[in-house]
Amino acid sequence: MTGKLLELSYGAALQERSDGVGVAWAELEAAEPSLRDADVWLRSKANRKKEGFGWIDLPHADLEAILEAGEWLASFDAVIQIGIGGSALGNRMVAGALLHPCHNELALAERKTPRFYVVENVDPRSTKALWQMIDPARTAVVVVSKSGSTAETMTNFLWIWEAMKRSLGEEAAMKHLLVVTDPEKGLLRAFAESRRCRSLPLPSTVGGRYSVLSAAGLAASAALGVDVAALQEGAREMDDRLALRSRLADNPAWIVAGLHWIHGCRGRNMTVLMPYVDGLKDFTEWFAQLWGESLGKEGQGTTPVRALGAVDQHSQVQLYTEGPDDKLFTIINVDDLGETALIPPVSDLELEPLAYLGGQEMGAMLHAEARATASTLASLGRPVLWLDLPGLDAFHLGGLIYFYEYVTALTGRLLGINPFDQPGVEQGKRFTCGLMGRKGFEADGKASKEAFVRIEGRHLSF
Amino acid sequence: MTGKLLELSYGAALQERSDGVGVAWAELEAAEPSLRDADVWLRSKANRKKEGFGWIDLPHADLEAILEAGEWLASFDAVIQIGIGGSALGNRMVAGALLHPCHNELALAERKTPRFYVVENVDPRSTKALWQMIDPARTAVVVVSKSGSTAETMTNFLWIWEAMKRSLGEEAAMKHLLVVTDPEKGLLRAFAESRRCRSLPLPSTVGGRYSVLSAAGLAASAALGVDVAALQEGAREMDDRLALRSRLADNPAWIVAGLHWIHGCRGRNMTVLMPYVDGLKDFTEWFAQLWGESLGKEGQGTTPVRALGAVDQHSQVQLYTEGPDDKLFTIINVDDLGETALIPPVSDLELEPLAYLGGQEMGAMLHAEARATASTLASLGRPVLWLDLPGLDAFHLGGLIYFYEYVTALTGRLLGINPFDQPGVEQGKRFTCGLMGRKGFEADGKASKEAFVRIEGRHLSF
Repeated sequence: MTGKLLELSYGAALQERSDGVGVAWAELEAAEPSLRDADVWLRSKANRKKEGFGWIDLPHADLEAILEAGEWLASFDAVIQIGIGGSALGNRMVAGALLHPCHNELALAERKTPRFYVVENVDPRSTKALWQMIDPARTAVVVVSKSGSTAETMTNFLWIWEAMKRSLGEEAAMKHLLVVTDPEKGLLRAFAESRRCRSLPLPSTVGGRYSVLSAAGLAASAALGVDVAALQEGAREMDDRLALRSRLADNPAWIVAGLHWIHGCRGRNMTVLMPYVDGLKDFTEWFAQLWGESLGKEGQGTTPVRALGAVDQHSQVQLYTEGPDDKLFTIINVDDLGETALIPPVSDLELEPLAYLGGQEMGAMLHAEARATASTLASLGRPVLWLDLPGLDAFHLGGLIYFYEYVTALTGRLLGINPFDQPGVEQGKRFTCGLMGRKGFEADGKASKEAFVRIEGRHLSF
Repeated sequence: MTGKLLELSYGAALQERSDGVGVAWAELEAAEPSLRDADVWLRSKANRKKEGFGWIDLPHADLEAILEAGEWLASFDAVIQIGIGGSALGNRMVAGALLHPCHNELALAERKTPRFYVVENVDPRSTKALWQMIDPARTAVVVVSKSGSTAETMTNFLWIWEAMKRSLGEEAAMKHLLVVTDPEKGLLRAFAESRRCRSLPLPSTVGGRYSVLSAAGLAASAALGVDVAALQEGAREMDDRLALRSRLADNPAWIVAGLHWIHGCRGRNMTVLMPYVDGLKDFTEWFAQLWGESLGKEGQGTTPVRALGAVDQHSQVQLYTEGPDDKLFTIINVDDLGETALIPPVSDLELEPLAYLGGQEMGAMLHAEARATASTLASLGRPVLWLDLPGLDAFHLGGLIYFYEYVTALTGRLLGINPFDQPGVEQGKRFTCGLMGRKGFEADGKASKEAFVRIEGRHLSF
């Protein structure tokens, strides 16, 4: 497939300023050798089989088993995906961008496609509410956990699986289950093998936050009618093109990674991702995990701030324009919004001041607002990146996904940290196990309680 | 009504540290006179009729007209609320906390209560998708804008109103419309008066982000079955109790405002609000507007970061624990989660390592995770506030809403800025008008285009 994947304008992220917080082109250029090294590291064949690098191969993976599973899932009235973090955010992101905005309601009314539920939190109200909405006999369950021991996912699985068995009997329930997990090891793999239930592999080299283009993200998406081959093709095309761009000025991923690095060094400790289209709202949630969990370590990493245009003009833009200069902004504009809606002429006398809107496209207004916000920020000297996406279809979304995975990994390498691990979440997990009375975690439970004593050391009941 | 409204533990937000970024009790105490002054300013009778102060009176307002409108709205199959920012976020927040998590699907299946749609963005795909879901003959439209000239709201109103008129005829359509706007001035007030359609007042002294306890937030909520009197009562009770606490050590709002102020001065330029309950996810969105738009001015203000436990343990907690020490954390724990779900005993041999979960409450796990995260952060020396909410009902939600409104206004006064205006959003509005060809805004259109030339000064098509 040819055609444009995206356009990047970054003039307002480079600024000659006398106050020491501007970034000159020469500084970005000085980072070019580091970016080239990072790129070589990322693409090295020797690294490819190592923990964390597996996502680079996903655009080239065989989709047959995923498409087959998707077809099977599509025969149900509802699909429940149980997963958390990377096993949920990618699905929400794809669904948010490519499905009808009222997908479940429409599916309930028309019964042409399964409804889709993601069970993520261990909130009894949410899990029970969802259970109330489905008919077990017409529902498939997809459980996603690489290790099979993710506490939240397995808690929900135990609960929902028990409810399925109680409704259908174990043998019949097993015909409603798809397990997505490590191909070789872990609790869920052992469970799937012993029960001979359906399963798909989540390669051990693919981290959760980089897993959306694996079975974790694609199986349910395929069931809901998403063109997962086009999603993968967009990612592959992005990968192929990036591989050919060996000069900074030609490579959008190097530019975006380099600018994030330098602005971070200038004390801008937040990166705001603000698409101007409802369909990318969940993309910012997915990006927030990718960025935050990959880069927040060793005292480094900027904080991802999720925003949505034009909505956040009425919430966050006051802060963005007049608050501290501590953010790098990326505004995503989508050229083809996929729908048109003509604003009718204003005939009411009382509404005459709105006459300028009449006869214009609603989408033109969204585009104008994106440009207005970007140019306001730029005119105030705030650093702004502008990304143009031709359209919000599977192909271009696939390209955008891979672009941000690539940028994130490059930025991690520039920071000198490992963008594929997450050592900082372990202590909380151990504390939880301790507090839940798991054997072998007694010391963690005690340490957690002691730390909590300090929290409660000053206390007010009101 | 008596009983606990909330509990605050703040021991881990006060830390004796040698690195210059800790906060001692003595420093908070030094802020007590400023907090007392800010409180006097906020409660002064002389200020009460001024722009922005009106929210303080909302807990005491008469609800009769709102309840009557709610009853009328409840007779429809669907209610569409058109509004943006404060005219949308409050409704989402109340609905998210107090309605069934799958409200619209349930309403579609059972037809006992109206479905509820909020039209906020000017995204043609969203507006048209929603229109596809409703039957105009069984749908009420609530349009909310104090001035009646909010561009996004009025664009959607013009489009939806035209579609309603086309379906039903103008006279019949008028019987489906509720206008919530300034009682005396503005385009929508003139429109409502001339058409003699239903309307409710949005007092001119109440800013959008402080308007949830006015008709803007309560009319549709009442229609959906929310106990808006209890919501208001919770706010009133919070107000009454705060008024009696004239010592720092007794006043949770003073403590929370003071700690935010001091940690902001220590360079912690983000405030993370992380409730451990799905029902408060939209509360963090509502809070983000309240905090960001009230305080982000004159180069000041910390950035609100929206989080959700336990979900963000698998997304943001890596960054929170091992990234820079640039955040003040508030974890909200809800004692009574409103539902119970017993995790079944683990009978499968392969899942034996999960046996510690069996027989425990799912909610106990959520509580343990909240404590684990708070104690992990505290043990790493990160500042943490812990808020306990007895339950997520209308009364306690009302109290929490008013508490954060109060804290935000106090913090603004400590910063020496006006927490009730939003001057920084004007330039973007003018730029949009200019780009949309509105008469009188030609110079703004030109300025916006010129600023955009600089953005595009460096450009890459890919």
